[in-house]
Amino acid sequence: VLPPDRLFAGLFARGAVAAETSDRAVLRAMVEIELALLRALVDTGLAPAQAADGLPAGDALADALDLGELGRSTAEKGTPVPGLIRALRERLGEHPAAAYLHRGATSQDVVDTAIMLVARRALQPLLEDLAAAGDRCAELAERHRATVQPGRTLLQQAAPVTFGLKAAVWLTGLDEARAELERIAEQELAVQFGGAVGTLAALGTSGLEVMAALAQELRLNAPALPWQAVRIRPARLACGLAIALGVMAKTARDVVLLAQTEVGEATEGGGAGRGGSSTMPHKRNPVGAVAILACAQRAPGLSATILSAMAPEHERGAGSWQSECEPLLELLRLAGSAAAALRELLGGLELHPQQMRANMELTDGLVMSESVVAVLAESMPRPRAQELVEQAAQRAAAARRSLRDTLLELAEVAQAVQPRRLDQALAPESYLGVSSELIDRALAAHRG
Amino acid sequence: VLPPDRLFAGLFARGAVAAETSDRAVLRAMVEIELALLRALVDTGLAPAQAADGLPAGDALADALDLGELGRSTAEKGTPVPGLIRALRERLGEHPAAAYLHRGATSQDVVDTAIMLVARRALQPLLEDLAAAGDRCAELAERHRATVQPGRTLLQQAAPVTFGLKAAVWLTGLDEARAELERIAEQELAVQFGGAVGTLAALGTSGLEVMAALAQELRLNAPALPWQAVRIRPARLACGLAIALGVMAKTARDVVLLAQTEVGEATEGGGAGRGGSSTMPHKRNPVGAVAILACAQRAPGLSATILSAMAPEHERGAGSWQSECEPLLELLRLAGSAAAALRELLGGLELHPQQMRANMELTDGLVMSESVVAVLAESMPRPRAQELVEQAAQRAAAARRSLRDTLLELAEVAQAVQPRRLDQALAPESYLGVSSELIDRALAAHRG
Amino acid sequence: VLPPDRLFAGLFARGAVAAETSDRAVLRAMVEIELALLRALVDTGLAPAQAADGLPAGDALADALDLGELGRSTAEKGTPVPGLIRALRERLGEHPAAAYLHRGATSQDVVDTAIMLVARRALQPLLEDLAAAGDRCAELAERHRATVQPGRTLLQQAAPVTFGLKAAVWLTGLDEARAELERIAEQELAVQFGGAVGTLAALGTSGLEVMAALAQELRLNAPALPWQAVRIRPARLACGLAIALGVMAKTARDVVLLAQTEVGEATEGGGAGRGGSSTMPHKRNPVGAVAILACAQRAPGLSATILSAMAPEHERGAGSWQSECEPLLELLRLAGSAAAALRELLGGLELHPQQMRANMELTDGLVMSESVVAVLAESMPRPRAQELVEQAAQRAAAARRSLRDTLLELAEVAQAVQPRRLDQALAPESYLGVSSELIDRALAAHRG
Amino acid sequence: VLPPDRLFAGLFARGAVAAETSDRAVLRAMVEIELALLRALVDTGLAPAQAADGLPAGDALADALDLGELGRSTAEKGTPVPGLIRALRERLGEHPAAAYLHRGATSQDVVDTAIMLVARRALQPLLEDLAAAGDRCAELAERHRATVQPGRTLLQQAAPVTFGLKAAVWLTGLDEARAELERIAEQELAVQFGGAVGTLAALGTSGLEVMAALAQELRLNAPALPWQAVRIRPARLACGLAIALGVMAKTARDVVLLAQTEVGEATEGGGAGRGGSSTMPHKRNPVGAVAILACAQRAPGLSATILSAMAPEHERGAGSWQSECEPLLELLRLAGSAAAALRELLGGLELHPQQMRANMELTDGLVMSESVVAVLAESMPRPRAQELVEQAAQRAAAARRSLRDTLLELAEVAQAVQPRRLDQALAPESYLGVSSELIDRALAAHRG
Repeated sequence: VLPPDRLFAGLFARGAVAAETSDRAVLRAMVEIELALLRALVDTGLAPAQAADGLPAGDALADALDLGELGRSTAEKGTPVPGLIRALRERLGEHPAAAYLHRGATSQDVVDTAIMLVARRALQPLLEDLAAAGDRCAELAERHRATVQPGRTLLQQAAPVTFGLKAAVWLTGLDEARAELERIAEQELAVQFGGAVGTLAALGTSGLEVMAALAQELRLNAPALPWQAVRIRPARLACGLAIALGVMAKTARDVVLLAQTEVGEATEGGGAGRGGSSTMPHKRNPVGAVAILACAQRAPGLSATILSAMAPEHERGAGSWQSECEPLLELLRLAGSAAAALRELLGGLELHPQQMRANMELTDGLVMSESVVAVLAESMPRPRAQELVEQAAQRAAAARRSLRDTLLELAEVAQAVQPRRLDQALAPESYLGVSSELIDRALAAHRG
Repeated sequence: VLPPDRLFAGLFARGAVAAETSDRAVLRAMVEIELALLRALVDTGLAPAQAADGLPAGDALADALDLGELGRSTAEKGTPVPGLIRALRERLGEHPAAAYLHRGATSQDVVDTAIMLVARRALQPLLEDLAAAGDRCAELAERHRATVQPGRTLLQQAAPVTFGLKAAVWLTGLDEARAELERIAEQELAVQFGGAVGTLAALGTSGLEVMAALAQELRLNAPALPWQAVRIRPARLACGLAIALGVMAKTARDVVLLAQTEVGEATEGGGAGRGGSSTMPHKRNPVGAVAILACAQRAPGLSATILSAMAPEHERGAGSWQSECEPLLELLRLAGSAAAALRELLGGLELHPQQMRANMELTDGLVMSESVVAVLAESMPRPRAQELVEQAAQRAAAARRSLRDTLLELAEVAQAVQPRRLDQALAPESYLGVSSELIDRALAAHRG
Repeated sequence: VLPPDRLFAGLFARGAVAAETSDRAVLRAMVEIELALLRALVDTGLAPAQAADGLPAGDALADALDLGELGRSTAEKGTPVPGLIRALRERLGEHPAAAYLHRGATSQDVVDTAIMLVARRALQPLLEDLAAAGDRCAELAERHRATVQPGRTLLQQAAPVTFGLKAAVWLTGLDEARAELERIAEQELAVQFGGAVGTLAALGTSGLEVMAALAQELRLNAPALPWQAVRIRPARLACGLAIALGVMAKTARDVVLLAQTEVGEATEGGGAGRGGSSTMPHKRNPVGAVAILACAQRAPGLSATILSAMAPEHERGAGSWQSECEPLLELLRLAGSAAAALRELLGGLELHPQQMRANMELTDGLVMSESVVAVLAESMPRPRAQELVEQAAQRAAAARRSLRDTLLELAEVAQAVQPRRLDQALAPESYLGVSSELIDRALAAHRG
Repeated sequence: VLPPDRLFAGLFARGAVAAETSDRAVLRAMVEIELALLRALVDTGLAPAQAADGLPAGDALADALDLGELGRSTAEKGTPVPGLIRALRERLGEHPAAAYLHRGATSQDVVDTAIMLVARRALQPLLEDLAAAGDRCAELAERHRATVQPGRTLLQQAAPVTFGLKAAVWLTGLDEARAELERIAEQELAVQFGGAVGTLAALGTSGLEVMAALAQELRLNAPALPWQAVRIRPARLACGLAIALGVMAKTARDVVLLAQTEVGEATEGGGAGRGGSSTMPHKRNPVGAVAILACAQRAPGLSATILSAMAPEHERGAGSWQSECEPLLELLRLAGSAAAALRELLGGLELHPQQMRANMELTDGLVMSESVVAVLAESMPRPRAQELVEQAAQRAAAARRSLRDTLLELAEVAQAVQPRRLDQALAPESYLGVSSELIDRALAAHRG
């Protein structure tokens, strides 16, 4: 269900989130809010029961409206709401609701609350996809608990890890980012309802009651105060989404690097044709990971925009809050697209443990040098052990010989350590530290 | 001609630029590029003349394609181009062009070049609107050359300026930003054409000839080298647009501030209803200026995104260039919308010179204190003059009396300066410095 | 206690936070971590008791090191840690600690943990200043509960509010931002300890014990997994700081606007000379608010930098985490400076209720139009009431007459409403809605 | 000559640029401006000759001032200039200059112009380093014109390139970024001189003459109008620096990727110990490239900050321009550090052509598939050729056999093409397209 009008939909508007964040979806949310307000007015006795009786269904009502016409009206009023009210009044005709429509609210109330509603809906598939991606990481962490591969720092082989640990690290990031988005979905999404200047004066002394009823109708939180001039909620949402995109990009980055022709430790799955190039028949590009990286690349700038709009003038800003809507929708869309892509990617990821092992052996022991130092240090001062290994490592690299043989040629080493003990030190399995415990921790946190 | 599907079109997708930057417009550009490439291949003898004969018109061809389908295909290939080629091949059927379509090119060639084409088209109305806005500033600068108003620093009245000078300052910003965008339109917009890895190997030794022919067909520059991995062009375009939005925001900011109820020196024009509030019948919001500010608020983040994509991996990046397209289109759209809004705003701006004068008198002379110091300093050391005026200013403010009278009560002042000379110093017209020359300079630069 | 070497210290490096975030403070934290690690090794039996006996005090040790020399060494190693270890080993000489120094850790462990330590210390004065600023807002909200001033939207007078409500809105923002920073200080600040590739292999099977002991030594959290490649903690810290700067800027923005010469509802306090201009003797610039705005302006970009570093390669990134340290320190410094400035500003803020009242009367009733509509709507359909008030408002504005008189000249109005009822509607006090309840809510939340 | 007080100096404050952008250097520039203004006043007859006679040397004067004291004063005045004037007056004592010091100028004039002066000085070593880095790229492009290596797109081997071409691509980026910075150094760096509100009223009718004289004294451009409220100059400088950092990061990114253990095509040079790890004796981290990437990572956010400060209020902004100084200095420092690091990196870069060749053979012909299609297409329709190669490629990959043998087993292929012709198609040298011409173009542009 990709949107019909976006050329890069498969990259940036993928999954259920695309429909939930369309401009049409925002319009539906606005209409829903106006209808909910009518019911809230009735509930609190500010409108007669008939004002909320027999109203058309919100979505149908919204879908009958001319989005383009509303869009045009924003040039004249600065928001789509006055145009929306006019259009709704026309449609309501003689219905008693017409007289009570929008009572007590102002344009920003409707726009802000609509974004909150849209966010709640868009977060749902996003959270599901993140959870499913996490589940898959958990499986990979468990299954590859002992699958050794080179750990790499600054893109240099450094010491062994397991692929299971790598998956556990991914899992931790995804789970923590998801937990925060869940918290946001539950606690930060709230109605904005303040009327002309945040006093709700048009509702006399009933403003807070109406706010509470409206929040209940929409299943959003009721805030302590209207927040039209305190933009913490949009900012937290933006940060939560950017952080989620960040950890997804971490996983995607690793996949792209593992999938390099020269590394060859992982390949994205997918049927024939996926990742193929129009000109190079042999290619199998990591398109899922690339899509995630492309989504994530856009997040810091978009969240900077939201963060820069936090100081509106007085009771309602002149330009700042207006600038938030589209970037927030974009962030939701990008995070949702990335989550859908990540779930798919992790679901089909093909791993190549043999190649991982082959890569471990690429340096003929150098990647185990820290381990060798530790063993030598059992029978000589550590600094001396370090020195000897450093020398041997340089010599081995220059001569393209194994670290083992080069070391054993050094009398001092040969005297200090048995070849068998050295071989143990050179076995990756002997030098995985607490990898397995860390995997357990990540799995426990995921399941808990 | 606003887009039919954007809820905030009047704010963020206004003017001709909106249509020029739609996803459909990008698709049209892509088709145009594929057709131009066919002609370039024919021109350089790499395809037979029939391959470019009797081809359908590009726009019609593009409009017959299913944008949604192409969008979906980007999930599988990472770009819309393979899907586009397939669709075009189907439509070409037995036409000899089918065999030569896309020859030598790769997906990024088409996407990058399409953005360049779109930019050229989108820049045209944008530049016209900027020029027209400048013309209007020039008129205002001329007409209000002597219209005094308070100059304000850190939002405090500081010393007199003229509204003409303020308009001249706006003009300078608009003209300089426009000059840079014109330079970009002429020099930076270039075809990207490198084939699989930037060697154009699929075209044998004719690659550069084809590139030149393609550039000529599309009336874009031919770069020295393909730039798929050197992203200076998108970065300069983004910076130029962000800077243009910055100077437009400067003008809009001043209008919003001048239009404050308590300042009242300017009002946005527009027929009845413009800027009206749904709930407050008296309001006349500066909606044009607000729209410009909202557009501009989004520019720094978007250009940061483009600037952060400048280090793609090797011969083609994995995620970075893919992330550029939509933000670049957005920047074009925002700058174009803001320029259209600014042209309209300046065309209808209502000024209130009487209120400007009244505001000049608000501090009963304090705003002229620097001028008074200068006059006193003719007959005493400047530091002493400064001291006396500072004292008098504090006393006058505290007692809500005029600076003039408070000063003349000081014997030292009364002795040093004639009341008439003091009155001259207190007249704003006497203290405008080189305002008029600066206006002349801005006008000369604009006309030159 | 401002830093001795920063030209703009009073703007950007103010308060206790400046010293806590200096490079020297980071170095002290690094040394402290190395010493704590020694103790943790002893605690877990990986080093003999003597290795942690009679060590020099951390700060003294750190202060004896040559910061410039360490800085230079980062060119060769990419981090200051190898240089630090060398320097510490030299100083330790024959002390048994020398052999155990840095055991199990890698450079990033020390740098990341140092930033966390620095953050904990820098957050303390920042949180105190934020709390004190909140207290002052609470006082203002209480004291000015009934002080009427114009509420302004899009910088146009819209309807009455009280200054107490404005202060309550500020309070809400400050309290919510502070709560999040407190949560971060308690829950997100954690040791980073992973060794070469995040497996802690150099410590055999004791890695997690050592991590726990290290965390306890440093009074930081012990994370489930090392986070050298999952950058959620720096990202959340950056976002929390940027949001805090955002809400502080909101308050500062309002102060700057209220302090405008033409508005005159507030002035920053401070002794003679504060906010004075070198050239304009009468000026009293809102320098505290300006400083806060300048700090906040820098936050979105800095947090974008942190958010863009979330996808490091494999087990340790090549460039991304290295880029985080200085921007994080800068964000701490800016937020701390702004909080110190805000506390001072709110402590001395001078308010001018008479001018607020005068501004309420500036439109001769127009600012009460929504209220008037409500009263008229008691005796006619609301749309008709709206229409009549709109007409009267335009006529009144054009003729510079009062809304009251203009309305009463309309027969339809005169018939519908008694002048006394109209006068009630025109009294700001009658149209404050739930302002007072909102103040109560903000105060309750602050105290609770 | 690294700064004595920055812990990460070798990463972020390297080269001559560090000293040129210190706060002390800004202070020196400020003092120089005040002295130059005295001379300009004398030149234009606004001050007697003695006012500029026998003045102390600027740098000595500046170095005698207490930077910390000035820094503290910015809390009270919002800028360091009033404090500076006071300190200078004290030092000047009875010198006639004291009475004319700062005449006609305002604080922002001094700060803005100081940043311009600092930029000019900081750009000099930066431009030299960039030019030298370019020279080295040119050498590499020439020397490795025929050194074949795999071209990689989306980090997958795609088709052959030469290392010479890669160096030429780097060269183009460096040269274009440098050209723009040179243009900026020549054309955009200008004095800011406007006095209290940009009218230069304090200088009567001589303001523009003084501005011209001041510009000449400082060897900066004289702008048409003061630009205190039109921030194009800082914005262009920021963009130029960010773009330069972007292209440097492109080169660094490639080096890091080429230096991967599994790729092994390049190594950073440097004496023993460089890039070594404290714990892993075998490591040789690409620390120069990492430093460049870390510098560049910070640029987009910093330039977003500058771009977001382009809409100051009226004649002088309240917070926006104040926020520019430190980020601009940081950008200069980062770009300068990166350029110094890049020059060094390219000067010592070790290349491994044998490993490049070995990597070309890693896919046993697959990387040549586009070339093979082209040859087959000589004797069959291209789509069929593409199909056959695609099939063979999949089969070859699955069976880990060579593309050559797999292809020749297909009757259709065997019939269409001679093995010798196929071998030619599989030779990387045969499929380099216009690589050599592109190198020539890059070299010509560099030399021209």
